[in-house]
Amino acid sequence: MQDIASYLEGVIKADNRTELCKSVIPGLIGAINSISNVLQNSHEVSLVGTANAFGDDQLNVDVEAESVIRSAITKCPAIITASSEEDPVERTVAHVNQEGSNDNYSSKEKYTVAFDPLDGSSIIAPNWAVGTIIGIWEGDTALNQMPSSSQIASILGVYGPRTTVIVAVRIPGQTPILFEAGLEADKPKDFHVIRPEIKFSDPPYPTRYFAPANLRYAAESEAYMNLINHYIKEKYTLRYAGGLVPDVVHMLVKGHGVFVSPVGAGKAKLRRLYELCPIALIMECAMGVATDPVTGTQILSKPVADCDERGGLICGNLEEGKFAIKELAPLSKP
Amino acid sequence: MQDIASYLEGVIKADNRTELCKSVIPGLIGAINSISNVLQNSHEVSLVGTANAFGDDQLNVDVEAESVIRSAITKCPAIITASSEEDPVERTVAHVNQEGSNDNYSSKEKYTVAFDPLDGSSIIAPNWAVGTIIGIWEGDTALNQMPSSSQIASILGVYGPRTTVIVAVRIPGQTPILFEAGLEADKPKDFHVIRPEIKFSDPPYPTRYFAPANLRYAAESEAYMNLINHYIKEKYTLRYAGGLVPDVVHMLVKGHGVFVSPVGAGKAKLRRLYELCPIALIMECAMGVATDPVTGTQILSKPVADCDERGGLICGNLEEGKFAIKELAPLSKP
Repeated sequence: MQDIASYLEGVIKADNRTELCKSVIPGLIGAINSISNVLQNSHEVSLVGTANAFGDDQLNVDVEAESVIRSAITKCPAIITASSEEDPVERTVAHVNQEGSNDNYSSKEKYTVAFDPLDGSSIIAPNWAVGTIIGIWEGDTALNQMPSSSQIASILGVYGPRTTVIVAVRIPGQTPILFEAGLEADKPKDFHVIRPEIKFSDPPYPTRYFAPANLRYAAESEAYMNLINHYIKEKYTLRYAGGLVPDVVHMLVKGHGVFVSPVGAGKAKLRRLYELCPIALIMECAMGVATDPVTGTQILSKPVADCDERGGLICGNLEEGKFAIKELAPLSKP
Repeated sequence: MQDIASYLEGVIKADNRTELCKSVIPGLIGAINSISNVLQNSHEVSLVGTANAFGDDQLNVDVEAESVIRSAITKCPAIITASSEEDPVERTVAHVNQEGSNDNYSSKEKYTVAFDPLDGSSIIAPNWAVGTIIGIWEGDTALNQMPSSSQIASILGVYGPRTTVIVAVRIPGQTPILFEAGLEADKPKDFHVIRPEIKFSDPPYPTRYFAPANLRYAAESEAYMNLINHYIKEKYTLRYAGGLVPDVVHMLVKGHGVFVSPVGAGKAKLRRLYELCPIALIMECAMGVATDPVTGTQILSKPVADCDERGGLICGNLEEGKFAIKELAPLSKP
């Protein structure tokens, strides 16, 4: 185990990122550690009888995870603005009164955090792995910014048999970093780096994996049905948890794979601000792709205009991602 | 939280099951609790460089889980014989020298335990939920007995964001019981009963789930490909972790679903003694089915002749299970 802040200061070479290294990322990883503890002791996973702003039913654990992250954010003076899937309005953070509180905060660093506190509501009751998704943006808003340069970091928390995090940092002009670390319950400021550098590997692969989301859409879309049949006939191995975090982390840990979530007739399901942009940064840092299946363009190439914007996703290693885009969005101009 | 032994004594009405209630099942659940703790702190999941008796590569966590259960068994004087997927030979248990040690053990109760200490090796590295599978058999061997009457209990441990167990007890002449409980790290003798009675619900279902194992076989089998196409066209929701425990527990918690693992040209993958029989008892206690996809007969209707016997599996709620059998084993005579 090693101190998170010290590790980050060692690998993030940019100047003027003291708060990011010492407060923002360690504080958010500490929150993931706390959520893990909440989940381990939440025997009853139940609807709280309310819906979030998007109309999704809320679980007691959704509410608790939201609360843990909001609390952590109030202790990071450089986080100026925050919004989440549970409360999707960008609000100025009211910091707790401590050294560097917002009133007299004078550092050059100012960040906006956009997060999905607990992704995977449909699979939490059967005790499958679920996760937290966090994007960290430069400045006081994530809206109407170019994601490829303004979203400078993202974090995935994975709550499975262990608690792990995937951390991506891509500061313009610096070499991107992407690593995996493990957390321990009683050590909120420490982690154990498992993979110091995550990169998709080059083909050929002994096994090829596919994760087809929104598979019901294949009943309507000949292109999607053909793509599924391609994977089956080529003897790809199916792994599909139905949780964005475990499905994406599976590819990162195996070193390759493809996740496909096309958009059907109804409203797209994945939120650009809380899900797609953070995942896309991680994919790009792994030298993979994250593409809109309708337009065939990179997820991070288009600003987010509204907290509720949604879309589909094709992501994974380069070859697999390109193939799926060609099949599903043949008329697109990437 | 409540005392496991007291709870079991309250729900298992049979006479002469004192050891089962006070020692065997609580001891094995305590081992699952310990394995959960091992996994939470196993940051590095790696091959130990050996293979088990079946030729599977062994992970460090497989070896540790095996050791934890073996140790628990030595403290249960009524467990006379044990074997596991990691050491698939039935051996007499050498008990630690304590009250009721084997030498002077005189209770009428004698059990054989057959277990898979950590199922889901392929998904442990990406931190997906995995599990333990345990069957408890009457007498001093599980071999050449009629499983439907001789395997009197089974336990699934689920290591996800929480640690949960599914416990089935079916003693001939008694009402079967099947329940789910949550564990807490520092309370090895207690659990929290989440669902005191698990039964598959009756159709119609708002969402229908399918879990197609060995999907690559659909490239060779027209019947399996047709079945997959049926699920897609009928807009079933895909959930497939690729771990037997999470895939089965998903159905139990949702109240319905179908898991299909047909047998292709190669050797079947699922072990009858360590996987199929314990899962089948749970399915039957939930009023579902667990069927051999080749013969169309119940998994529990045929004795296990050898520790290495393998097979396929169709299981889930009655209607879904029957439909899949009709499609995959149309010539069978159930």
